[in-house]
Amino acid sequence: MPDIVSQYRADLLHSPERGQIERIPDALVSVDGDGMITSVAQYSAAKTTPDTIDLRGQGVLIPGLVDLHIHAPQFPQLGMALDVPLEDWLLRYTFPLEARYADLDFATEVYGAMVRRLLAGGTTTAVYFATIHAASSLRLAEICVELGQRALVGRVAMDDPESCPEYYRDADAKTAIKDTADFITAVRAIPNNTLVEATVTPRFIPACSDEALAGLGQLAAEMNAPIQTHCSESDWEHHFVHARCGMSDTFALDSFGLLTRRTVLAHAGFIDDDDMDLIRARGAGIAHCPLSNTYFANAAFPLRHALEKSVRVGLGTDISGGPSAFLLDNARAAVATSRMLETGTDPSKEQHSRGVPESRIDFRGAFWLATMGGADVLDLPVGLFAAGRHFDAVLVDLPDTDLVPLSDEDLLQAIVMRATPADLKATWVAGRRVCDDQ
Amino acid sequence: MPDIVSQYRADLLHSPERGQIERIPDALVSVDGDGMITSVAQYSAAKTTPDTIDLRGQGVLIPGLVDLHIHAPQFPQLGMALDVPLEDWLLRYTFPLEARYADLDFATEVYGAMVRRLLAGGTTTAVYFATIHAASSLRLAEICVELGQRALVGRVAMDDPESCPEYYRDADAKTAIKDTADFITAVRAIPNNTLVEATVTPRFIPACSDEALAGLGQLAAEMNAPIQTHCSESDWEHHFVHARCGMSDTFALDSFGLLTRRTVLAHAGFIDDDDMDLIRARGAGIAHCPLSNTYFANAAFPLRHALEKSVRVGLGTDISGGPSAFLLDNARAAVATSRMLETGTDPSKEQHSRGVPESRIDFRGAFWLATMGGADVLDLPVGLFAAGRHFDAVLVDLPDTDLVPLSDEDLLQAIVMRATPADLKATWVAGRRVCDDQ
Ligand SMILES: [Zn+2]
Ligand SMILES: [Zn+2]
Repeated sequence: MPDIVSQYRADLLHSPERGQIERIPDALVSVDGDGMITSVAQYSAAKTTPDTIDLRGQGVLIPGLVDLHIHAPQFPQLGMALDVPLEDWLLRYTFPLEARYADLDFATEVYGAMVRRLLAGGTTTAVYFATIHAASSLRLAEICVELGQRALVGRVAMDDPESCPEYYRDADAKTAIKDTADFITAVRAIPNNTLVEATVTPRFIPACSDEALAGLGQLAAEMNAPIQTHCSESDWEHHFVHARCGMSDTFALDSFGLLTRRTVLAHAGFIDDDDMDLIRARGAGIAHCPLSNTYFANAAFPLRHALEKSVRVGLGTDISGGPSAFLLDNARAAVATSRMLETGTDPSKEQHSRGVPESRIDFRGAFWLATMGGADVLDLPVGLFAAGRHFDAVLVDLPDTDLVPLSDEDLLQAIVMRATPADLKATWVAGRRVCDDQ
Repeated sequence: MPDIVSQYRADLLHSPERGQIERIPDALVSVDGDGMITSVAQYSAAKTTPDTIDLRGQGVLIPGLVDLHIHAPQFPQLGMALDVPLEDWLLRYTFPLEARYADLDFATEVYGAMVRRLLAGGTTTAVYFATIHAASSLRLAEICVELGQRALVGRVAMDDPESCPEYYRDADAKTAIKDTADFITAVRAIPNNTLVEATVTPRFIPACSDEALAGLGQLAAEMNAPIQTHCSESDWEHHFVHARCGMSDTFALDSFGLLTRRTVLAHAGFIDDDDMDLIRARGAGIAHCPLSNTYFANAAFPLRHALEKSVRVGLGTDISGGPSAFLLDNARAAVATSRMLETGTDPSKEQHSRGVPESRIDFRGAFWLATMGGADVLDLPVGLFAAGRHFDAVLVDLPDTDLVPLSDEDLLQAIVMRATPADLKATWVAGRRVCDDQ
């Protein structure tokens, strides 16, 4: 075991179990040379090294945030084009923008700005869709290594000529599979890469041929690679896949070997109980993206029902289907959306007929999703201050919290409901301070 | 007419008509000694004074934001206690907190911090509920004058012993009315007060006796004072008033003389077509508070329907029923909520049976509500860059907008959907720079 190389004296706030929060005032966190926490204890002067970093008075330390779904190339259009229909959004905005990443200089500029922005927003682990371009997708992985962000990065596969424009698609299924394999190999060969893993990334069933989907499933098994794709995002996708495959997205992905313990399914808003049972049986996880769903799903993901069925769920920003790069904006949207699912929205209906009872989650559940939920989906030892977990952390200093005495629950609720990136004072990944003086 | 005393060279973005945006690149805005805009023209060196303030390159100038509904005393619990039922929220959190404003020192500290925070968030006009305490409510008005925020301030009337706790209510209806009258007189006597007006402020019908409500309606007429109160906020309030008054909130308020051209109704989520017709006939306006409604209304205000019936509507944060002090958080929530009303939220229902068609607004409508809509509700000449309007303005510099070329619509959508207070670089009210280097 490496020696202790850093110690942090701080007030900690985290969520070991869903629905519970724990505050450890004046704690001492010891971290080894690999950035792994070796112990979390009550502070005691006797046990400290001379250069213990004292964070008391500068805010509270929370686990780093885990963003399970980001389209890295869409970062330049964040917060835009949310007023247009999906077809316009894809054909007029998104595909033309993604096609630009054939230009490695453009990719380098955008991806660098984006990773810095996300680190400043406390996102210590990010799951990225890149584009079909091998070189710029590799550049994204390299930038994450260089800037110190834990990440999964996918070179996107999309070969169906019916749904993908000629200027932006894989030439054929073989290309989609081979370029994916080469990309995974290249990411694994990045020097000093302890942070970034490559994923198998079919965009979604409507964008891929059966041959590509089956080949990618086989590739994921052969290379033991994680997988990410979209699942049952909208009425349209849900019905499209049913018509083409004769089954739901979930079952279709499973038939292609794409539903594994290492799969992240984006959205999954329209999955039913059978889908949930299969997802749980395979051990796949869901990236719940409530802000994006408002614009592109046309319904609310049955979050609490999925959690109560022991489906693994975390949160995603879905840049740029969602308008915010800040994961806590999605944590609070998860709370709000779950309440609008529970109460319904149409005031002309009777109170007890307009919603789905017992759908709400609160700030405790949202904070768990943003930290431990995401960690659990990825099977990564992050999301919590405990020995054996990576020291991925964010220092939060929320203003106007000194006007009245606050309970631990008050403070955490205020952080979840109203913190902005400006309130985050520093971010660490694997013990490295990757962002400060934000 | 006073002379021109300030000139600003800047890119302007505003919304003269609902649904439309206008960008005026490189404009020259001339402002007189009273802070009133005397002209808005294309920049031309010939027409400038030597000390023209050049804001180009520092962001885009938008009209100041108008927040129609704030409970000033609840600022210390912003973002908290949103997970509890309304009764707990009132009795365990809100009434005990509001009762503390008997302490003038406490009020001075909180109100000062709050007004500064709101100015930093671009809120140039604020409509405040204070508390039942005359002295600290007056202090709030004085702080607005001193710090330079345009405001309406109400000393809250609440005398019903059934619904208000003994430690926090007016002794009787006469006290409620007399203290309100004295408060209005005192605010009108604040020296150099060109910014703040006092309102008649019955908390809501359930908190007031009939005698108080009728007396306050008469007082508003006698003193020609604006009025603010809550209307049909939740299922509970809606049904309570029906049971007590035999009519809707709207009609009951009208029967007490409280529905006038100068009335601001908070929420109004459960009003029907007859209510809307009456509100329009009286010329009252609505403070739509979508974030608060998520937690305390249990339904979505039929915003677009109200607008299409020519009811005047603006936005409110409803601090602390809503978790954010930043009005643009409510602008984007107005978009999101309107879409969830249109699409419904329950994915197990068929697409065409789960929502209310044609309910959505977009970023253009939300921006209009946050500026011109609020100005219209208050009959204040703000919300727009035009001669005869106050120079109330905010300089916005959104990051990451230089990665690809943006249209005017792209930029405005990005501002509405993702700006944070940290992106606001300066705020002016009546030509006075009230906040900078935020
Ligand atoms: Zn996506
Ligand atoms: Zn209110």
